[in-house]
Amino acid sequence: MKNLFAVVLAGGAGVRFWPYSRELWPKQMLEIVGEDSLLRQTIHRLDDFIPAENIFVVTTERLAPDIQYHLSALGAKAKRIRLIKEPLGRNTAPAIGLAAVHLKRIDPEAIMLVMPSDHVIKDIRSFQEGIRTARSGAEEEFLVTFGIKPNKPETGYGYIEVEAGSWKEGSALKKLRRFVEKPDLEKAKSYLKAGNYFWNSGIFLWRVSKILREIEQHMPLLFQGLKTIEEAIGSERESETTGTVYPELESLSIDYGVLEKSQDVLTVPASFDWNDIGSWSALYEVLEPNAEGNILRGNVVSVDSENSILFGGDRIVAAVGLKEMVVVDTPDATLIASRDHAQEVRRVVDELRKNGREEHLIHRTVERPWGSYTVLEKGERYRIKRVVIHPGEKLSLQVHRHRSEHWVVISGTAKVTKGDEVYYVHPNESTYIPVSTLHRLENPGRILLQIIEVQNGDYIEEDDIERFEDDYGRV
Amino acid sequence: MKNLFAVVLAGGAGVRFWPYSRELWPKQMLEIVGEDSLLRQTIHRLDDFIPAENIFVVTTERLAPDIQYHLSALGAKAKRIRLIKEPLGRNTAPAIGLAAVHLKRIDPEAIMLVMPSDHVIKDIRSFQEGIRTARSGAEEEFLVTFGIKPNKPETGYGYIEVEAGSWKEGSALKKLRRFVEKPDLEKAKSYLKAGNYFWNSGIFLWRVSKILREIEQHMPLLFQGLKTIEEAIGSERESETTGTVYPELESLSIDYGVLEKSQDVLTVPASFDWNDIGSWSALYEVLEPNAEGNILRGNVVSVDSENSILFGGDRIVAAVGLKEMVVVDTPDATLIASRDHAQEVRRVVDELRKNGREEHLIHRTVERPWGSYTVLEKGERYRIKRVVIHPGEKLSLQVHRHRSEHWVVISGTAKVTKGDEVYYVHPNESTYIPVSTLHRLENPGRILLQIIEVQNGDYIEEDDIERFEDDYGRV
Repeated sequence: MKNLFAVVLAGGAGVRFWPYSRELWPKQMLEIVGEDSLLRQTIHRLDDFIPAENIFVVTTERLAPDIQYHLSALGAKAKRIRLIKEPLGRNTAPAIGLAAVHLKRIDPEAIMLVMPSDHVIKDIRSFQEGIRTARSGAEEEFLVTFGIKPNKPETGYGYIEVEAGSWKEGSALKKLRRFVEKPDLEKAKSYLKAGNYFWNSGIFLWRVSKILREIEQHMPLLFQGLKTIEEAIGSERESETTGTVYPELESLSIDYGVLEKSQDVLTVPASFDWNDIGSWSALYEVLEPNAEGNILRGNVVSVDSENSILFGGDRIVAAVGLKEMVVVDTPDATLIASRDHAQEVRRVVDELRKNGREEHLIHRTVERPWGSYTVLEKGERYRIKRVVIHPGEKLSLQVHRHRSEHWVVISGTAKVTKGDEVYYVHPNESTYIPVSTLHRLENPGRILLQIIEVQNGDYIEEDDIERFEDDYGRV
Repeated sequence: MKNLFAVVLAGGAGVRFWPYSRELWPKQMLEIVGEDSLLRQTIHRLDDFIPAENIFVVTTERLAPDIQYHLSALGAKAKRIRLIKEPLGRNTAPAIGLAAVHLKRIDPEAIMLVMPSDHVIKDIRSFQEGIRTARSGAEEEFLVTFGIKPNKPETGYGYIEVEAGSWKEGSALKKLRRFVEKPDLEKAKSYLKAGNYFWNSGIFLWRVSKILREIEQHMPLLFQGLKTIEEAIGSERESETTGTVYPELESLSIDYGVLEKSQDVLTVPASFDWNDIGSWSALYEVLEPNAEGNILRGNVVSVDSENSILFGGDRIVAAVGLKEMVVVDTPDATLIASRDHAQEVRRVVDELRKNGREEHLIHRTVERPWGSYTVLEKGERYRIKRVVIHPGEKLSLQVHRHRSEHWVVISGTAKVTKGDEVYYVHPNESTYIPVSTLHRLENPGRILLQIIEVQNGDYIEEDDIERFEDDYGRV
């Protein structure tokens, strides 16, 4: 469809899926439902509908490298998808505004579809049908929201109440009456019965020009900020200006900031399945439990346990006599929660943050463009990693000022640059990189290169690295 | 007291405390209550009462090296305590019989105190007082059992019913009427009220000659076997004979096999505290919970959790909204159980055994006489260990036929023997031991030696080891 652009919001932290999600590995990157990550499923939902060069992913500066690498698994099309980087996460109004001013420069007639990156929608055909319907409203200068027809009295979602009847003869669109906060069960039941209440999906469609006019009217300070950024886009000031202006913008959702105030909002009563999987418990709505009511993954021994989510990893998780529980095991952290407390996981994350730990921040295995590394143990003056490098990939040419590294190859062949030397290290061979020595590790072979790295030094944090050359633009 | 010997039964597997306990690290070796292991607390209970050379610990061949090393933490007296080794674990009747024939050779007048090694008794004075009382019965040719005065209607213990009144004028001992199986709550309440019911503690005192006569009468086959073993004790046939005869003995408890049938049983109504801590839940009876009713240990983040046992380790365990739960985390396995299902942990152990795993068998950190090793990761053709060697200790002179080893020193100084060479390796230095090369690792220094060992090979199991010299008798 001409002028149609997709804006995928992928800046969220998703603390409610800790310990699977981490600040630097948020919910949208998880493969918890279906065969692929939620973000990549979101992109696939646009296949044959919106070309990759019309897809923009909004994320934070901090997440951008990982999101970029994460998207690369989409293949050739990944290179055509563009990232819009927020200096830091605000809320949906600034994020959508930022995307709008970027799109406006590319196509002043642009119609933007806004989608969260971490929801589940399986019925792609019906989803795309909804977009077509929404477009007819956007073209008549409306802001269009997607309302999901409720199939149960859900108390975890916000609702949209619409006027009875179509907003105009022959249209499936309805005029929005009001946004409704998460209701109690009794209200949710009455909404379900009434028939003119829909779940607020956070999916929107509108002309870029229209949303910017509405922002100007209802959030004039945001509009001023966006204007300043817009003028800098494409210039050498772009990054600096965005970096100065954006963090000062008011952190508000587009629902509160604009949609609730606008007179021109229509709703598509969408018929596709939709779930925002807002917590571990919500997996029950999108995954099929077994005969005991359990959803199992990984290394779990279950004895007399029922109606529980039991996600193990390599380690053994033994669940004995559990009822209505969530157990999620990762190499460095295990969550055990009663299902009705699953939302409180954020308090664990708060606690870890407060105590200066890093289990809320990163996983023990960290994905990198060239492969991954896993911290096997960290102690005083040492750290042990298993480093995996994909065939043909190489780490940056780098130097550490505080640590030496011993490398033992356990599979594949390593090409090692150490000072002026270049040599090869094979399985069951080792080499040593002294402190302050320029070095580079590369997999010149056809199979995975795996090395065990033993770091020694006074200071053994990740930030002791100076990069001189890098295939992935990290110099 | 003259002729008084203690026999500590320490062959049990204690699967009910998995994953803290393992087949090769059973409950008696755990420091779950008090500052020391249950076994060492059991030995300390005899301090200044029974000399160390009169203390015998009965355990299995398989456990014996670890038990021996475990006892060495008792200091000088450990060398005086003797081990009696069962070729494999039977039940208490054969174990007590085996100890009896050993004691009989040392002192035909021996009086033996039989004690489990994994119970909690804090009131040592009252315990020793009980022994004095029991002795008076033993000297009049009775089998004396220790009955614990119940303080609640416990349904998890067997009971002893005694005759009202003393068995003889002026004695605190009572004549045993019958053994009673674990009762239901109603019966337990009536026992508590009746006043002549006691918990069966598994602690006994009798003359060696008397228990052997009773075994002869009530378990003649066991008696025959014991006689055969007795004749071989001290000869070069001892080990072979015990190894042949013992596994064929009937596996029965002394309660069923002898005490229920004997006419000569008295009971000491003991007033000391006693708990057999038969499961994780039983810790509630011997440890003090905090204001939320939780018993916490290690790295735990608790949010809205109550009345739960939450034992973390180095990793983070987050407990959210738990009620009446048991969570026990170890490096390779985590147990999550509802408190009322804590007994079912054995089913997890059965499952692991069936699946050929080893999480029921050993811990990831394995204690050795010279220190310990921790498996950090095991993969195809490699395994990574952190090895810790105490000052002055050394591993055996050994050779592996299927693996090479890379050693990186992270603290201390290593003295390395490799073939004919002897040399030293310091922190941030490494060395390499090729396959089939005789080698030895030693800590000649004053501080802990820690090395990271990366093993490479076709076969990397612990049994690929030939020992040539060993300080700990393992050649």
